[in-house]
Amino acid sequence: MKKTLIVGTVAYDEIETCKGSSGKILGGAGTYIALACSHFKIKASVVSVVGGDFESTHLELLKKKDIDINSIEVISNGKTFYWKGKYHKDWNKRDTLVTDLNVLADFNPKVSEDFAASEIVVLGNLHPAVQGAVLDQLVKTPDAIILDTMNFWMDSALEELLKIVKRVDVIVINDEEAVQLSGKESLFLAAEEILKLGPKYVVIKKGEHGSMLFGDEGFFVSPAFPIKEVIDPTGAGDTFAGGLAGYLSEQNEVNFENLKNGIIYGTIMASFCVESFGTSSMENLQKKEVFQRINAFKTFTSHSV
Amino acid sequence: MKKTLIVGTVAYDEIETCKGSSGKILGGAGTYIALACSHFKIKASVVSVVGGDFESTHLELLKKKDIDINSIEVISNGKTFYWKGKYHKDWNKRDTLVTDLNVLADFNPKVSEDFAASEIVVLGNLHPAVQGAVLDQLVKTPDAIILDTMNFWMDSALEELLKIVKRVDVIVINDEEAVQLSGKESLFLAAEEILKLGPKYVVIKKGEHGSMLFGDEGFFVSPAFPIKEVIDPTGAGDTFAGGLAGYLSEQNEVNFENLKNGIIYGTIMASFCVESFGTSSMENLQKKEVFQRINAFKTFTSHSV
Repeated sequence: MKKTLIVGTVAYDEIETCKGSSGKILGGAGTYIALACSHFKIKASVVSVVGGDFESTHLELLKKKDIDINSIEVISNGKTFYWKGKYHKDWNKRDTLVTDLNVLADFNPKVSEDFAASEIVVLGNLHPAVQGAVLDQLVKTPDAIILDTMNFWMDSALEELLKIVKRVDVIVINDEEAVQLSGKESLFLAAEEILKLGPKYVVIKKGEHGSMLFGDEGFFVSPAFPIKEVIDPTGAGDTFAGGLAGYLSEQNEVNFENLKNGIIYGTIMASFCVESFGTSSMENLQKKEVFQRINAFKTFTSHSV
Repeated sequence: MKKTLIVGTVAYDEIETCKGSSGKILGGAGTYIALACSHFKIKASVVSVVGGDFESTHLELLKKKDIDINSIEVISNGKTFYWKGKYHKDWNKRDTLVTDLNVLADFNPKVSEDFAASEIVVLGNLHPAVQGAVLDQLVKTPDAIILDTMNFWMDSALEELLKIVKRVDVIVINDEEAVQLSGKESLFLAAEEILKLGPKYVVIKKGEHGSMLFGDEGFFVSPAFPIKEVIDPTGAGDTFAGGLAGYLSEQNEVNFENLKNGIIYGTIMASFCVESFGTSSMENLQKKEVFQRINAFKTFTSHSV
C-alpha cells in the first residue's frame, strides 16, 4: 500500500455564511486533505502542529479514518491555530475576521522515518518555508509532489514560493491566483507560464465552474459536480487536492491520464465538502456515495459528437 | 434537407473593447445565428428588416452562404438597427452606448410560405411580441422551437415573454438571466423552475465557463472551448444558439442526446465567433476548422474514471 505524506494545518475554524454560523469547529488544510485521502486504499500521514487545547476526540477522529497522526505535534502550553471568516453571498468572496497563528507561528515540521519515503507528497497551503522544510526531509524522490498554495504567499513570500514551485510536480491553484502568479490574463496563457516555473502539471480550480489540467500532453477540462445548495465552501480546495492525491496514490503511475481521473475524484470529494459546515460531511461520507457521484459525473459529461 | 427558420436582427454594430474599436460593422442576432447555421446541411431563412442604408454586399454575404434572404425586408426610406457598445475588461460586463431601433421599431415579421412549415425555428433575441408573431404564422408544429432571450425583456415585457416561453421547446438563456427569470439562486434550482414554465429543455450559457442542459432526462454539463485570446464576445450567444439549431436540423429527432451534441457544436461555433471583431471569423470559418475543434473538444473532455 502506497504512502502519502500530507503537510498542512490542523486547526479550529469559525465560519459565518448567509446560511448560518458554525461555532468553533475542526478545520485546517491538513485535516481536509487527510479526510479526502482516507477514502482511498493508501497509508496517509499528516505532519502538523496543534496546541494543548486541541480536543483528543478530533485526533481520534483522524485516527479512526486510518490516518497516521504520529507527526501531529502537540504543544501542550500552546494554542491551536484559529481562523474566523465570513463568506459573502457570492461564495468566491470572503473576509478573514480573525487569524491567530498560535502554535503555527513556530511550526517546524518533522517528517517521520516511516513516511520520509512516501510515494505521494501533498504540500497543503502553508508558508513556503514550511513546505520546503518538509521536502528537505524526504529520503526518496516521490512519484509526485503536489503543491497547494494561495495568493497570500504570492503577496508575502513570493521568492520562497517560487523556489517551492520549482521543486514540485503538480501545482494546484485557483483561477485568480493563476492570473496573479503568471501575470497573464487568460487561464490558458497563465498555465503555459506557470509550467515554465517548474511543475510538470498545473491544475487550475475554478470553484463552481470546475477545473482545468495543463501539461505537456495537452489540457483537460472538468466541470464541477453541480449541487443544489452550498452550505460552506471552506476546505473545498483542500478536499479537491486530497481527492486528487488519494486517487494518484492508488495508481501505478503518475501521468496525464491518471491526473485527469484524479481531478474528477477531487471534484466529487469537494462537492460533498461544501454541502455542510466544516468537515462534517467529509467525516460521514460513505464509499457508496462517492461511487454514486462518480457515476452521475460520467453520465452528465458523456456525449457522442 | 430540413428547413430552419430564424427570426432575429440584421443590424449594424459598433464595438469597443480593451483590444480596440470595430468601427461600424455587420451584426445582429439573426446574422450570427444564420452564419452558424450555414455550416450545416440545411436550408435556413432569416426573417428580419433592414433600412435603405444596409449595404447590398452584406445581403450578398448571407446569400453566398446559402442563407435564404427573401424574408429580410428592406425599408428603403428607413435606417438599419444600430447598436454601439463598450465591453469592460471583464468580458461579462458591457455598457450600451447607443441603441437606434430605426426600422426595428415597427418590425412586423413576415414568414414566407416556403418556411412556414420549417422543422426547426429559432427565435433570436427580440421583443417577445415579434417572436410570437412568427410563431403565429407557422403552419406545422416544428420539431423544435428554440428561444433565445435576455434580461432586457424580463424587465420590460415579462408577461409577453412568459407567454412565448410557454410555447417553445428549448430556451437558451445565460446564468444571470436564469436566476432572474426563476427567482432561484442556484442554476440547478433555476432550471427546475424554468422547466415548469413550459419548455422541455433549458440551456444555460455560462460564457467562458461553458453551458448546462436540463430536461426530464437529467442534465448535461459542457465546458467552453478554451481559446487563447478573446477579441470581441458580441454574438457569441447567438452563434451558440445557431450552432445548436444547425446541428438539430441535421438530425432525425430532437432529443436529449442530440441536444447534448448540439450544445457542443454551439460551443465550438461560439469559440470561433469571439476570436475576431463582429462576424468576420464566422464569415471565413472553414468546415475543417470546425471538425478540428470538435476533435480537440473530444480529447480535452475525455476521461476514464
